Amino acid sequence: MDRLNIAAPQAFLIEPLVRAALAEDLGRAGDLTTDTIVPKDARVRGLLNARKAGVVAGLGVATIAFRLLDPDAQIEVACADGTTVGANRPIATVSGRARALLTAERVALNFLCHLSGVATATREIVDAVAGYPARIACTRKTTPGLRALEKYAVRLGGGVNHRFGLDDGVLLKDNHIVVAGGIRAAIEKAKASLGHMVKVEVEVDHIDQLGAALAAGADAILLDNMTPAQMREAVAIVDGGAIVEASGRITAETAAEIAATGVDVISCGWITHSAPILDIGLDFEPI
Amino acid sequence: MDRLNIAAPQAFLIEPLVRAALAEDLGRAGDLTTDTIVPKDARVRGLLNARKAGVVAGLGVATIAFRLLDPDAQIEVACADGTTVGANRPIATVSGRARALLTAERVALNFLCHLSGVATATREIVDAVAGYPARIACTRKTTPGLRALEKYAVRLGGGVNHRFGLDDGVLLKDNHIVVAGGIRAAIEKAKASLGHMVKVEVEVDHIDQLGAALAAGADAILLDNMTPAQMREAVAIVDGGAIVEASGRITAETAAEIAATGVDVISCGWITHSAPILDIGLDFEPI
Amino acid sequence: MDRLNIAAPQAFLIEPLVRAALAEDLGRAGDLTTDTIVPKDARVRGLLNARKAGVVAGLGVATIAFRLLDPDAQIEVACADGTTVGANRPIATVSGRARALLTAERVALNFLCHLSGVATATREIVDAVAGYPARIACTRKTTPGLRALEKYAVRLGGGVNHRFGLDDGVLLKDNHIVVAGGIRAAIEKAKASLGHMVKVEVEVDHIDQLGAALAAGADAILLDNMTPAQMREAVAIVDGGAIVEASGRITAETAAEIAATGVDVISCGWITHSAPILDIGLDFEPI
Amino acid sequence: MDRLNIAAPQAFLIEPLVRAALAEDLGRAGDLTTDTIVPKDARVRGLLNARKAGVVAGLGVATIAFRLLDPDAQIEVACADGTTVGANRPIATVSGRARALLTAERVALNFLCHLSGVATATREIVDAVAGYPARIACTRKTTPGLRALEKYAVRLGGGVNHRFGLDDGVLLKDNHIVVAGGIRAAIEKAKASLGHMVKVEVEVDHIDQLGAALAAGADAILLDNMTPAQMREAVAIVDGGAIVEASGRITAETAAEIAATGVDVISCGWITHSAPILDIGLDFEPI
Amino acid sequence: MDRLNIAAPQAFLIEPLVRAALAEDLGRAGDLTTDTIVPKDARVRGLLNARKAGVVAGLGVATIAFRLLDPDAQIEVACADGTTVGANRPIATVSGRARALLTAERVALNFLCHLSGVATATREIVDAVAGYPARIACTRKTTPGLRALEKYAVRLGGGVNHRFGLDDGVLLKDNHIVVAGGIRAAIEKAKASLGHMVKVEVEVDHIDQLGAALAAGADAILLDNMTPAQMREAVAIVDGGAIVEASGRITAETAAEIAATGVDVISCGWITHSAPILDIGLDFEPI
Amino acid sequence: MDRLNIAAPQAFLIEPLVRAALAEDLGRAGDLTTDTIVPKDARVRGLLNARKAGVVAGLGVATIAFRLLDPDAQIEVACADGTTVGANRPIATVSGRARALLTAERVALNFLCHLSGVATATREIVDAVAGYPARIACTRKTTPGLRALEKYAVRLGGGVNHRFGLDDGVLLKDNHIVVAGGIRAAIEKAKASLGHMVKVEVEVDHIDQLGAALAAGADAILLDNMTPAQMREAVAIVDGGAIVEASGRITAETAAEIAATGVDVISCGWITHSAPILDIGLDFEPI
Repeated sequence: MDRLNIAAPQAFLIEPLVRAALAEDLGRAGDLTTDTIVPKDARVRGLLNARKAGVVAGLGVATIAFRLLDPDAQIEVACADGTTVGANRPIATVSGRARALLTAERVALNFLCHLSGVATATREIVDAVAGYPARIACTRKTTPGLRALEKYAVRLGGGVNHRFGLDDGVLLKDNHIVVAGGIRAAIEKAKASLGHMVKVEVEVDHIDQLGAALAAGADAILLDNMTPAQMREAVAIVDGGAIVEASGRITAETAAEIAATGVDVISCGWITHSAPILDIGLDFEPI
Repeated sequence: MDRLNIAAPQAFLIEPLVRAALAEDLGRAGDLTTDTIVPKDARVRGLLNARKAGVVAGLGVATIAFRLLDPDAQIEVACADGTTVGANRPIATVSGRARALLTAERVALNFLCHLSGVATATREIVDAVAGYPARIACTRKTTPGLRALEKYAVRLGGGVNHRFGLDDGVLLKDNHIVVAGGIRAAIEKAKASLGHMVKVEVEVDHIDQLGAALAAGADAILLDNMTPAQMREAVAIVDGGAIVEASGRITAETAAEIAATGVDVISCGWITHSAPILDIGLDFEPI
Repeated sequence: MDRLNIAAPQAFLIEPLVRAALAEDLGRAGDLTTDTIVPKDARVRGLLNARKAGVVAGLGVATIAFRLLDPDAQIEVACADGTTVGANRPIATVSGRARALLTAERVALNFLCHLSGVATATREIVDAVAGYPARIACTRKTTPGLRALEKYAVRLGGGVNHRFGLDDGVLLKDNHIVVAGGIRAAIEKAKASLGHMVKVEVEVDHIDQLGAALAAGADAILLDNMTPAQMREAVAIVDGGAIVEASGRITAETAAEIAATGVDVISCGWITHSAPILDIGLDFEPI
Repeated sequence: MDRLNIAAPQAFLIEPLVRAALAEDLGRAGDLTTDTIVPKDARVRGLLNARKAGVVAGLGVATIAFRLLDPDAQIEVACADGTTVGANRPIATVSGRARALLTAERVALNFLCHLSGVATATREIVDAVAGYPARIACTRKTTPGLRALEKYAVRLGGGVNHRFGLDDGVLLKDNHIVVAGGIRAAIEKAKASLGHMVKVEVEVDHIDQLGAALAAGADAILLDNMTPAQMREAVAIVDGGAIVEASGRITAETAAEIAATGVDVISCGWITHSAPILDIGLDFEPI
Repeated sequence: MDRLNIAAPQAFLIEPLVRAALAEDLGRAGDLTTDTIVPKDARVRGLLNARKAGVVAGLGVATIAFRLLDPDAQIEVACADGTTVGANRPIATVSGRARALLTAERVALNFLCHLSGVATATREIVDAVAGYPARIACTRKTTPGLRALEKYAVRLGGGVNHRFGLDDGVLLKDNHIVVAGGIRAAIEKAKASLGHMVKVEVEVDHIDQLGAALAAGADAILLDNMTPAQMREAVAIVDGGAIVEASGRITAETAAEIAATGVDVISCGWITHSAPILDIGLDFEPI
Repeated sequence: MDRLNIAAPQAFLIEPLVRAALAEDLGRAGDLTTDTIVPKDARVRGLLNARKAGVVAGLGVATIAFRLLDPDAQIEVACADGTTVGANRPIATVSGRARALLTAERVALNFLCHLSGVATATREIVDAVAGYPARIACTRKTTPGLRALEKYAVRLGGGVNHRFGLDDGVLLKDNHIVVAGGIRAAIEKAKASLGHMVKVEVEVDHIDQLGAALAAGADAILLDNMTPAQMREAVAIVDGGAIVEASGRITAETAAEIAATGVDVISCGWITHSAPILDIGLDFEPI
């Protein structure tokens, strides 16, 4: 896959997030330290270095942060978004007004380290299932406000995106099925009410629910917390009649065993909600 | 300390974040699944359960989420914010319109699990230094948009807050000191320019910088990446003349050794930027 | 279909639109006429009357407008959203403070008349294809800012929604197909890159493109500006292997002939972009 | 009249509307189709063509849409805002990055087609009264959120604007007159309370109300739903003592007869609330 | 005049200003002092006292501030907006949660003292011209963001409002007249282009410009920096043919002499841009 | 002090205020006068002149206003922010499109005159205490929405900033002390709860409270409404053990006597809440 062709969220949609993050850090009085100490006309070059190995994600966001404070800041990228960078290796260089770059530093890094952490966690589990057809998908368990960015980081890490929200697909869970009066009724009701571009996935806990789901024309079936053996049996029963997704606290350690069952998609919450940051530093030198 | 007296961020300031998170999840079309399947007048009770032990944080935020969709939703809290809850123990019950609660579920949990994760990580390291006078402080390495909430979660976990941003204190680092022409000049310049309510902290890498910092009247001194032995020496030299803060990738494993050196404050980035979520579930039953 | 079970957009997402519309009408100085003439404590009852027959849509939005100016305004609904009301028949009664209701009147009506116009236009074309399985779908040709509301009005009129935006489904058109190097390549590229919940529709101009679309697994096929005869042929060729959608300036006059070809979906732009309002008046009497 | 001297709404006030419309169309995930298929560096030229004859309005708004996604997009305008364009004639050419222009297309057209529809409808009725002194005015029956743009389109179509809102003029209607205790009392109360730059118009249903309106110094008189004969009589009575406005479901068919009565202003709601779009297409070719 | 019938700006339009002001004062961390010291359940009663005599303005705004932090706060008003209160006299009592009222105190007072200052300054100059028909009008020289509130305060002080902005009336000044090619051309151009509800005022520096202004049908004439003798002459020449407004650094000391010239309106910038606050205190007692 | 090194609030944070102020002045219809009279391509040069002597503040804000309407407007500054300008002396020249500059004029001046008024008032009182070590500090009695700008103007006038809000320092007043059970308990509670970068100031009314404040380690002591003799005694008692601040309706007339008592800080509310504007005009000439 041509990693560089992965589309980042539109800049005009991300900029408000970066403005808000800068406003959150600058408060009313701004950067007391820098404004007091650093002359207005001083210039500086900063080197973004990975302190550990990982997948870079968020350089565009960091650039927006620097440019909101210095519209003429220059960024030279050594490792573009989606690249795996080694420990203690340079990622990019940013040059511009010293006050602006020192003031924007923390916000730029907070985005960059978090998103690279998500991409790195994704890459780890994607690599774990290499050789199997299963794809790694993220969930809606994302950080409030950062969903589009985190889902972009997942793509950079080699994963695919599940639903972006409650509005771009149907996922029938226990509660819905009970209310609707069974799997078949639930699927049919959804298909009758919604437009022809909406897919319907149904969550099943037991193998014996698969028949109803397939008969009603489910587009996808989510196997919830099943054992690998059960998953294998489910895959055989479905037999290509629907997409099969495995779910339930799957990690890099357990993913290969799951992938070996033949499921099409493995969804993981932790790559967005619990991935540690990728430690990236910004080292300055005057110019 | 009376944990329950810790003030949560004002609801009117948090509500826009929750609205944005709900809008992020609902998109334009809303909850296709629930709106299609669940009758408008159905009611439900949901039980928030901790799947693992930890410190609860964010019940007020979750409540805002439920009430934005059902203003009459009722919340009964068993374990208030700041409480340590055991694994598989109930935290709270929420009752109201079924559509509203099912639709708000994920957003409410995304806030609650993340903030409880931060509080739990903080508590872990706070407990590790129990018996020492050192306090655990968070940093500005927070998730963009969530700083006030994450700093609140840190307080719930028993920690204290360092600066909320660049504008409520001076922290002189390498770059500033070089530009200013030395520690003394930097501190004096800051004190001369800024109001009398602003404290000045200076980061030192070497023991022999302490003298200049003390002489110039630094309010606090940050020991950056020093060994415990160096910290102990620094504490002795400072001898109460300034607050001493230890910093540099300190974890629950290493904190006690650091605390034993006599430093006043130990600051940790990971409790906000890399804490895994506390897994909390929401189980529904019709009413 | 139980029309009353159609979910309206969440009130907390619609309220900002209504606030903006009221601000647009009130400007800085407010309602000069009413504020000058009408006593603060006067109360009034207003009757919403249909001046022509049509389908009601937007009573919830109108209610938000009245309540933003008088939180205690009372609305009694005779013809709920989705109901077909006769000419010169009452729709609802609103009671409250005279200043508030007189000031909110135009904004409430601007929403209500426009949305009812969309619902009425939809109903007209839906009725025209009654007896055929084809469903009437709206497009993305909507009024900027009002998409969710207009798509709701379409549902109230008996139609279904096509994509809500560029992000909840793939629609491959001429330009995309040329760039990708053919229909097959385009579909495969989309399926490989995107998550398993995204459907792929492809627009075809010629009958002989159908084979490639089917072979590549298109979920839906849009027949662009074909004659009824061509559509009939296309339906026969597809033979249930994909959803078939007809498109191209279809109106209430031509819809039945199109529906008779056996297509699954007929999409119409004019029901959202060119529907005339349904004329609804608000007649006041003091109380 | 020099049509080109008509001032468009300030760009900085319109841009937020265009951002909101693009956000409404792109959602969280952006243009799945284009982002997946079209290479990042592809460039394209698009031709805006009128599919029917009409008056162009909104090229500036469309330009903002394209430039929000490609700041370097170039627009060459053949038929500027206010020009009458023939069917199947080119309006403008836009060149730039293919992804940006394909993604912005629908939003740009939604604004352009709607506003050109309003301008075209206005021009139709303006032409119908050519030769009479009467001017065609729009009302406050506008699409929520688009009032300034629609009123601009009306000016481009040769019409003039009535009040922009409730705050830039007084219009005394039935309800106000009853509450105030008569036409004279209402006008006097308004004149006494409000600043000297506010005009007062009064709506009259009967010829015999004209005397009181004139005596009290009404700046303008609105004849509500009168017959042409009544209007003619009213014009004679007023005899230049106030502006005379005719109102009440006036269309291009009936306008000339109304204009012939000698009224100064004819106000029409349908040119803003029910004008069908002007069909304009955007045809792309690679560059 | 019934002062109590003066309409305040709509609460839903003012609330965002109050939220912003509270956010400006609370920052990210909130009220450190109150949150640390005052128990959550403490309640308090606060007495708003005028420290000097003046006209009260802004109680509704202050109430919004208190209620954003304590929705159940109770306000009992002794001196409503528009009332002249004596020095050291009570204005209102507010009761509610202690934390909320202490935290909102400064923001509530900042609005209340400023607006009451504007009303008091207005009243002073209005009283100075008592007995003359001249009305006192404010200008567009207002505090950015507070125009609607300041213009409301002017009304409470007995003044009237001139234009609310550049869009609700024409005021032709030197630059416009030169560009248009004279007063007559300027007025005629404005009348031809704009709707019939827009008044046209023209600023004249010399008596000999009056003829052209009157001939072209100016609705109002602004005498710029003329002497009282010149004003008297101008009033005689205009002779009721247009509203006559006097302008130019007029204060309470000079207003009576100006009013005696017979002008209709005296406009003053300083009542909005330079009025000192009315000193109002808030004294608390526990309840 | 190098006045030019005082940092202005970040432009990206101020721009929204300027946009809002322009929107407040332009309303929906924009500048009716200029748009009607001035040709689109006319250009103009404007000279900002001080009508009275004072300290300039806000040129950056004014520049934002001009550039929002004409991005290519050029500003040449003769007297930068912080400079004392003489009466009838030029401050800056602005050149650009005539429509843009005429339309932005009032908003630019409203900011510039108000902020220069604050800076001028500050300078007046700063000059009054020249020769004494006391610094002049502003308070939280600022205009809602303009705090960061007014505090910047205070710095330009030679003053320093007290707290920017409730969140960047503790100020214990009567009510807090009573609730906490005394000065000592209040200070200790604050120090125990809050981070190490927060200073604690305590307000004392009586000399005999100083002992408790010093013993508990107050960082600063505010002497509320004391006589100069009491202040002198307080300064002697404190003897360098804490910052001493004088407060209470101090003006340029009384400041020197206060400064002579040896206090470190004199805080003044009126320099932000009641400073009259500095009268600055903008005179245009065609180019």
